Amino acid sequence: MYRFFADSQNINRSGGSIKLNIEDTEHIRVLRLRPDEHFIVCDGHGIDYTCRLGEHDDTSIAEIISQDRSQGEPTVKCSVFSAYQKGERLDYLIQKSVELGVYEIVLFESERCIAVPRDIQKKLTRLRRIALETAKLSGRGRVPAVTSAGRFKDAIKIAASSFSLPLFFYESEDNLHIKDVLENHFLPAVNDNETDQNTISIITGPEGGFEPHEVDSARMEGFKIVSLGPRILRSETAPAAALAAIMYQTDNF
Amino acid sequence: MYRFFADSQNINRSGGSIKLNIEDTEHIRVLRLRPDEHFIVCDGHGIDYTCRLGEHDDTSIAEIISQDRSQGEPTVKCSVFSAYQKGERLDYLIQKSVELGVYEIVLFESERCIAVPRDIQKKLTRLRRIALETAKLSGRGRVPAVTSAGRFKDAIKIAASSFSLPLFFYESEDNLHIKDVLENHFLPAVNDNETDQNTISIITGPEGGFEPHEVDSARMEGFKIVSLGPRILRSETAPAAALAAIMYQTDNF
Repeated sequence: MYRFFADSQNINRSGGSIKLNIEDTEHIRVLRLRPDEHFIVCDGHGIDYTCRLGEHDDTSIAEIISQDRSQGEPTVKCSVFSAYQKGERLDYLIQKSVELGVYEIVLFESERCIAVPRDIQKKLTRLRRIALETAKLSGRGRVPAVTSAGRFKDAIKIAASSFSLPLFFYESEDNLHIKDVLENHFLPAVNDNETDQNTISIITGPEGGFEPHEVDSARMEGFKIVSLGPRILRSETAPAAALAAIMYQTDNF
Repeated sequence: MYRFFADSQNINRSGGSIKLNIEDTEHIRVLRLRPDEHFIVCDGHGIDYTCRLGEHDDTSIAEIISQDRSQGEPTVKCSVFSAYQKGERLDYLIQKSVELGVYEIVLFESERCIAVPRDIQKKLTRLRRIALETAKLSGRGRVPAVTSAGRFKDAIKIAASSFSLPLFFYESEDNLHIKDVLENHFLPAVNDNETDQNTISIITGPEGGFEPHEVDSARMEGFKIVSLGPRILRSETAPAAALAAIMYQTDNF
């Protein structure tokens, strides 16, 4: 079923209708939806409204038939902190992360970055569009935010302090495997605060990887330095693989 | 370290040298490798030779310093059987599958395929090049084969009969989850033949998914029809997510 997102202010629960924005109205026109066809409007906070088309002029009105909890949200909140990467790789990273259930994506500049955008706001606007479109197509119950955290040292401070499990992926690490870390973290006895246990931050590097002193800084901030196995994953593949591993471990696949 | 693959016939173990092909010779010339720099030549069957540059004219000679088992090969043999997809998606599927440890990739034509190449040999040549380049960069010990199996019904016959665990990924399946299937399959008591237990086939569809009657055929061939969770994954993302799950479950991450 086609899927759209609407701002809370445009959802009139008591009146049983939702006002769609101009862009979605245009999309519905192009799709030639018939009045009896159903589609989903999601409030972006985990509620899906099954709707049919009502009035249709500059903005469409969707008539609410029923509502339900969105099925597409995982029980863990994984925030991907990624160094800036070249255009296509970053597009891909956003798309795959959203499909695989990321909570938010935070971008930062590290030493070996070769592609820090000159106009970060413009870049973020583009990436947020990819996140929105992917969230629609993959059936997410919210649109993951895409933001910028400035430089590496600022990013690791945020990613270390606000999450129950801060993970730093480093290709030269070969002692600590992601499976050992996740299995241990999700042992029932280790954590009894469910909300806290379910926030994970993932740090991944640019095309050329991290400088050894950056890895040392992350270790000192409290990150677990983790391996994703003996194969070297590309910079845009690593976060997707890490998310898949986390979704698998936490029964979100 | 830079990595090349050489045919067995060009590896002279007793003489302690390996003859590289013209393409790799040219690559080494471009890289301006110094005579004392080390690089890896892999025989494509799981042995890595650490080498330094010897003679250097039309074809380079690599002098063998030491040899070791390749670290990049997983302990499971996962064959991805994928329906043909549009150009970029298929390129991506090959690249990510090789990074994530696929054993081989077999392509086939299913009903909703919108992009079956007119010249399949030409397409395979291109995809094999991607597999080779990705195998070099990701540190694989062999180059996964890329082949074609003709039509859906032929592909599922191969994928069902020669593998210990044939998995069919279908977005409308919501009862059987991949984690339950894998955990059960890899229970020590279920299988005592290690070789057999470790061959898995993965069937994934084209952009538009499978027809319900195709799913029924697969079920009758003995496939487990498996879900990858409540989010709808793109056709090129599904095999990567499945491979990541399998590598995680089998301690190959």
